[in-house]
Amino acid sequence: MSFIKIDDNSDFPIDNLPYGVFTTHNCNDPHIGVAIGNFIVDLNIVSSSFPSDLAQAFQQPNLNEFLKLGHDKWSQARTQLQSMLKNDSDLSKDAVQQSKCLIKQSDAIMHLPIVIGDYTDFYSSIEHAMNVGKMFRDPNNPLLPNWRHLPVGYHGRASSVVISSTKIVRPVGQTSPLPQEDRPNFGPSKALDYELEIAFIAGPGNKLGQPIPISEAHKHIFGVVLMNDWSARDIQKWEYVPLGPFLAKNFATTISPWIVTMEALMPYVVENQKQEPVPHNYLQHVDPFTFDVDLQVFIRPNGSVTNETLVCHSNMKHLYWTMKQQLSHHSITGCNIRPGDLFGSGTISGPAKESVGSMLELTKSGAEPVTLKDGSTRKYLQDGDEVVFRGFTTQKNKSRIGFGECTGIVLPSSYLA
Amino acid sequence: MSFIKIDDNSDFPIDNLPYGVFTTHNCNDPHIGVAIGNFIVDLNIVSSSFPSDLAQAFQQPNLNEFLKLGHDKWSQARTQLQSMLKNDSDLSKDAVQQSKCLIKQSDAIMHLPIVIGDYTDFYSSIEHAMNVGKMFRDPNNPLLPNWRHLPVGYHGRASSVVISSTKIVRPVGQTSPLPQEDRPNFGPSKALDYELEIAFIAGPGNKLGQPIPISEAHKHIFGVVLMNDWSARDIQKWEYVPLGPFLAKNFATTISPWIVTMEALMPYVVENQKQEPVPHNYLQHVDPFTFDVDLQVFIRPNGSVTNETLVCHSNMKHLYWTMKQQLSHHSITGCNIRPGDLFGSGTISGPAKESVGSMLELTKSGAEPVTLKDGSTRKYLQDGDEVVFRGFTTQKNKSRIGFGECTGIVLPSSYLA
Repeated sequence: MSFIKIDDNSDFPIDNLPYGVFTTHNCNDPHIGVAIGNFIVDLNIVSSSFPSDLAQAFQQPNLNEFLKLGHDKWSQARTQLQSMLKNDSDLSKDAVQQSKCLIKQSDAIMHLPIVIGDYTDFYSSIEHAMNVGKMFRDPNNPLLPNWRHLPVGYHGRASSVVISSTKIVRPVGQTSPLPQEDRPNFGPSKALDYELEIAFIAGPGNKLGQPIPISEAHKHIFGVVLMNDWSARDIQKWEYVPLGPFLAKNFATTISPWIVTMEALMPYVVENQKQEPVPHNYLQHVDPFTFDVDLQVFIRPNGSVTNETLVCHSNMKHLYWTMKQQLSHHSITGCNIRPGDLFGSGTISGPAKESVGSMLELTKSGAEPVTLKDGSTRKYLQDGDEVVFRGFTTQKNKSRIGFGECTGIVLPSSYLA
Repeated sequence: MSFIKIDDNSDFPIDNLPYGVFTTHNCNDPHIGVAIGNFIVDLNIVSSSFPSDLAQAFQQPNLNEFLKLGHDKWSQARTQLQSMLKNDSDLSKDAVQQSKCLIKQSDAIMHLPIVIGDYTDFYSSIEHAMNVGKMFRDPNNPLLPNWRHLPVGYHGRASSVVISSTKIVRPVGQTSPLPQEDRPNFGPSKALDYELEIAFIAGPGNKLGQPIPISEAHKHIFGVVLMNDWSARDIQKWEYVPLGPFLAKNFATTISPWIVTMEALMPYVVENQKQEPVPHNYLQHVDPFTFDVDLQVFIRPNGSVTNETLVCHSNMKHLYWTMKQQLSHHSITGCNIRPGDLFGSGTISGPAKESVGSMLELTKSGAEPVTLKDGSTRKYLQDGDEVVFRGFTTQKNKSRIGFGECTGIVLPSSYLA
C-alpha cells in the first residue's frame, strides 16, 4: 500500500508505476516521472536518492539512457520506487519533499517518453490477418503461406509517432481509379481508420551482425504502450503493391504517454497461443509471454466526452506471436536494435464480432456501417471524431494495471480540391 | 582553381566540396569536413571564420544542424569555402593554418555524416521495376497499375545504415520451403545481392500535417550519396507478402562517406524522363531535376584490389521519378521530414544489359551466372566478395564531380546449422 491515496479503479496503483515524460506550466524542461494514482513522482527531483547510474538516467529529458541500463537496473529502480512510495517510507513523512516531487497529473503536459530510432509494425493477430485476408484475397484461404512460420512485419515511419492527444490531420493522397477510369483519384482520404495495437519499447539492444537469441529477448523488452496505427485504407489499397504500406500509415501513429513495464505486467501472463506448425528453433520459447490485458476502443463524435460509443473490446492475449518472438525474428539477420526502438503488435482482433480492432473489419470495409450512441453511423472516421483507446487488467483480487488513454481527434484536411 | 593541387581524375575538385564527418588517429572527436583533392578541410578548425550560425553548425559532430539551416545558408557556406580554397586566398598564403586545417584523406577515418531519423527507399527506375516484374510477376505486364502514377516506396531500417567499408555479415533467415515441403528453410542467405542506388539527404523538412509542395522541394534536398541496399533475395521472396521487404534488407545499408551537394551537381542536370501518363498536379514540375552521373559496380573476390570486375555501368539519369517528386509524394499525407532523413532511389538500372543495378537482374536470379575476371562465376555474392560502387560525372570540359567509393566486404555468417 502506498501513502498516496489511490482509487480502486485507478490505472496506476503502486504495482504499476509506469514511466513517462512531462512538463508543467511552471517548468518547461521535460522530466521523467512515474504515475501513481492521480499523481506523478518527478524522478528528476528525487534522482539523487538513487545509485549514480540511475540518478543520471533520471535527469535526462527522455527514457533512452534508462532503457540502455538494462533489465537488472530497471528492476532495481522499481524496487526502490515502491519502497519510496509505500506507507511509512521517509517520503510519506516528509511533506516538504512531497510538495516538490509529487505533481498532479492534471497539471502535467505529457510528451513522447522516448527518442524513437526506428519503428516497426508487426501483423501478429491471427484473427486480424484472417479478417483482412478474407476481404482482400481469398475467403477460403485468407492466410498467406508465410504467416504461421514467422511474425510478418514491416518498417514504419518514426518521425510521425506522436503522443496521445496530438490532433490528426486527415491525410491527402492517391486512391484507386474509379471503375472504367485509368487515372487514380486524389484528395483527402475517405477511409480513415484506427488500428488497435500494443507496442513494446526496446531496452539495450544488440550490435549489428549479432542476433538477440530468444532466451535473451525478455532482457531487451522494457515495457508497453497503447498504440493507434492510424491508417488510410483507400490510400493503402492503391499504393501497397509490391512494397507494402507506405503513405497510408506515415501521417501519424499515436502512443499512450505511460510505458507500463513488463515487470508490472508479469503477474498477468497467460499461456501462449498454440502455434501450429511449430516454428523454427530461433522462434521457440516455452515460458508464457502472452498477457491478459483488456483493450477497448471508443469513438467520440466531435470529441464529446459524454457521447462516447464502445466500438471494440479486445484483449492483448489474442496475439499469436509473442513480443519475444517478434524481437528475435527482427534481429535474426543481425539487424541492430537500439534503446527506444518501438515495435507495434499489429491490430489486435479477437474471435468475437465486437473484438475486431479496426473499422475495416468492424464495418466490413464500409459495407456494414456501425451505429453510434447518438444515432449517427460510420463507415470510417469522420472529421471531429475522437478515437480513444483504453487498456487495463481485470483479474479479480489483483491490482488493476492500466495504460491510461491513447487518444486523437481527426481534423479536416487543409487540402482544397 | 584551388591552391591545393588536384589531379584531373580526382572526384573532389573545388567545384565539388562534398561534406563528410571524420576522425583521425590524433583526434577521436568527429569533425565535419569537406573533401578537396586528396585532402579534407576541417570545418571545425576553420569554423570561426564563418558567420555564427554556420560556425556553430560546423562545430557539431554531424551535419544535422547544418542541414537544418537550409538552402541559402548551404549556398553561403559553399561560396565562402570556394573563396577560402582558391588561389591567392588568405589560407593559400598561411602555411601554419593549412597545417592545422588540411588533413590527408588517407589519415582520416570516415563516419556516418548524419544522424538518420528515418530512412525511406523508393523504386524509381522503370527498367529495374520492369526487370523485377518480369521475373516475379507477368513478363507481358511487368509494371503494377500504380507504378506510373506515383513513386512507389517503403520505409526502411535506419539503425543499420552504415558507412562505406563497414563489413557486412551474411544474414540468416527463413526462405521458401523446397518443392514438396511445407516447412520453410532456415540458414544463411544463399542469394545475397547488392542494389546500386543513389540516396538524397533532407534539409529542414516540414511540420507534421503540412506537405512540402513540389515548388519548394528543392529547398529540402541537400545532397546525395551512393548507397548499397544489400538484399537477401531468398529471404525477401518468402517474407515480403503482404507487407513488403523487411528482414531481407534490414541487416545493412551502406552509404558513401561524402555528401555531394545539389549545388555541385546542378551543372550536370539533364531533361527529366517523359512521364506518361502525366501524374497528378502535386507531382508535376517542369524544371529539370535529373542528373547525368555515371555509376559503376565492381566485385572484388576476397577484397582483392587488383582483381576487380566491372559488373554494372549505369547512370543516375535512368530514374523515372525525380527526387523532388519523391519528396513531395512522401509528405503529401502530411508526413514530417526531418533534417538528416535518408531517401534511396531504388536500384538504378538502365536499358542496356550491362546497366542493371543488381545481381538479381544481372544473373536472371541465378539462371545466368556472371563470370569474373579471375574466371570464377557468381549467381549471387560469395563470402569474401567486396562490392565497390563508384559514381562521377563525365561531361567534357566540365569538372569531374565524384562520390568516392561505397564499399563493403561480405563476411561469413556466424550461424552454425
